Amino acid sequence: MVVTLIGTGNLGTNLHHALSQAGHEVVWLHGRSFAPEDVRGEVVLISVKDDAIADVAARLGGASQLVAHTSGTTDVNVLPQRRRGVLYPMQTFSKQRLVDFAEIPVFLEAADAEDVQLLELLARSVSRCVHRLDSPSRRHLHLAAVFACNFVNHCYDLSAEALREVGLPFEVMLPLIDETARKVHSIPPRQAQTGPAVRFDEGVIRRHEDMLTGRAKELYRLMSTSIYLMHNS
Amino acid sequence: MVVTLIGTGNLGTNLHHALSQAGHEVVWLHGRSFAPEDVRGEVVLISVKDDAIADVAARLGGASQLVAHTSGTTDVNVLPQRRRGVLYPMQTFSKQRLVDFAEIPVFLEAADAEDVQLLELLARSVSRCVHRLDSPSRRHLHLAAVFACNFVNHCYDLSAEALREVGLPFEVMLPLIDETARKVHSIPPRQAQTGPAVRFDEGVIRRHEDMLTGRAKELYRLMSTSIYLMHNS
Repeated sequence: MVVTLIGTGNLGTNLHHALSQAGHEVVWLHGRSFAPEDVRGEVVLISVKDDAIADVAARLGGASQLVAHTSGTTDVNVLPQRRRGVLYPMQTFSKQRLVDFAEIPVFLEAADAEDVQLLELLARSVSRCVHRLDSPSRRHLHLAAVFACNFVNHCYDLSAEALREVGLPFEVMLPLIDETARKVHSIPPRQAQTGPAVRFDEGVIRRHEDMLTGRAKELYRLMSTSIYLMHNS
Repeated sequence: MVVTLIGTGNLGTNLHHALSQAGHEVVWLHGRSFAPEDVRGEVVLISVKDDAIADVAARLGGASQLVAHTSGTTDVNVLPQRRRGVLYPMQTFSKQRLVDFAEIPVFLEAADAEDVQLLELLARSVSRCVHRLDSPSRRHLHLAAVFACNFVNHCYDLSAEALREVGLPFEVMLPLIDETARKVHSIPPRQAQTGPAVRFDEGVIRRHEDMLTGRAKELYRLMSTSIYLMHNS
């Protein structure tokens, strides 16, 4: 397939790699500076920051191709094109780390039934896990992903800060991080919960709070309360 | 070695399994109901809730053995015995899931140099990663573990809630959870951070907040602010 991919960020870079590897001819353009006459192929993928999708789509004008964005949270209807769709690969992407697309769940929708099939064909060429999902449900899915990935990573970061306080390397935490992730493959997170908050071990919680200041302390409190109440109400 | 293990909770159950597997003779006693005359062996491990350690230790009286607790957060000096120590395996333990101890970092200390060696011998019989660490540093380590494990698992749980809203199974999140954990093996969490908060994608953040209520909404806000400020100040 010939595909135009607009966007050179973390996801754009990973998509370019996966689509090229799958044998597609990819016309790869910058979101800020592309010229509409450079656009070619059957599908145009817009992979830019959410706030910029509508602007990029407007610059494409009345494209005859299927125009799809790759966002988890933006409605398909921000695209003005008649042939519009979404192809959302749910993963955390960084430019410096090209991930294996085969295991990434891809969620898609399109206004037109034939376009759903076209997107499905494209998605299946890079991933084994392709699902159809409408915009409102995808927004909830994306929120769930923010909790399971972005907030989780921030917890790793706060953990790294606590380790730096006593000169321990972040690497000591990796076996615990790995087991915490592995555990929820077989035990639902509600049952997998351990630690002072679920036991309501007041002495431990108080000692931890005494070691923290500012936002980290506030987060510790709110997290502990949330865990305790989720397990005891 | 002959070891008395007091405590039948998540960690106690996993320790009993690991020590028995390593060929030790383990006298396994309940924290609430053990009789001091049942205690035998060279080492007594107290693996009960933090608030109960001092009480269990007091009931042991002037034991001639080395008495060690297994807590990340309790000071070694809550033990009244002259021969006192700590053997803290840093992992998330559940009774229904017996983990492989070999990869678990174990942190130990003892008042007496010979007892450090005794604890090290015991720890190395079950784990390949044994470190010495004093009580104040271990308290910071435990705080770091709460962020990297307990709070991370709670984020998984909140993610599962968001998925339930739209009838999606938690399993769709596992590839993202796994990659988020794998990523910090090679990229520090600060650099690995992705998502709307680090990009300060206001539209996305507002739409997410609109989907949440109560504590989950509060957590979303505080997490997003914390991520943003950590990356932009």
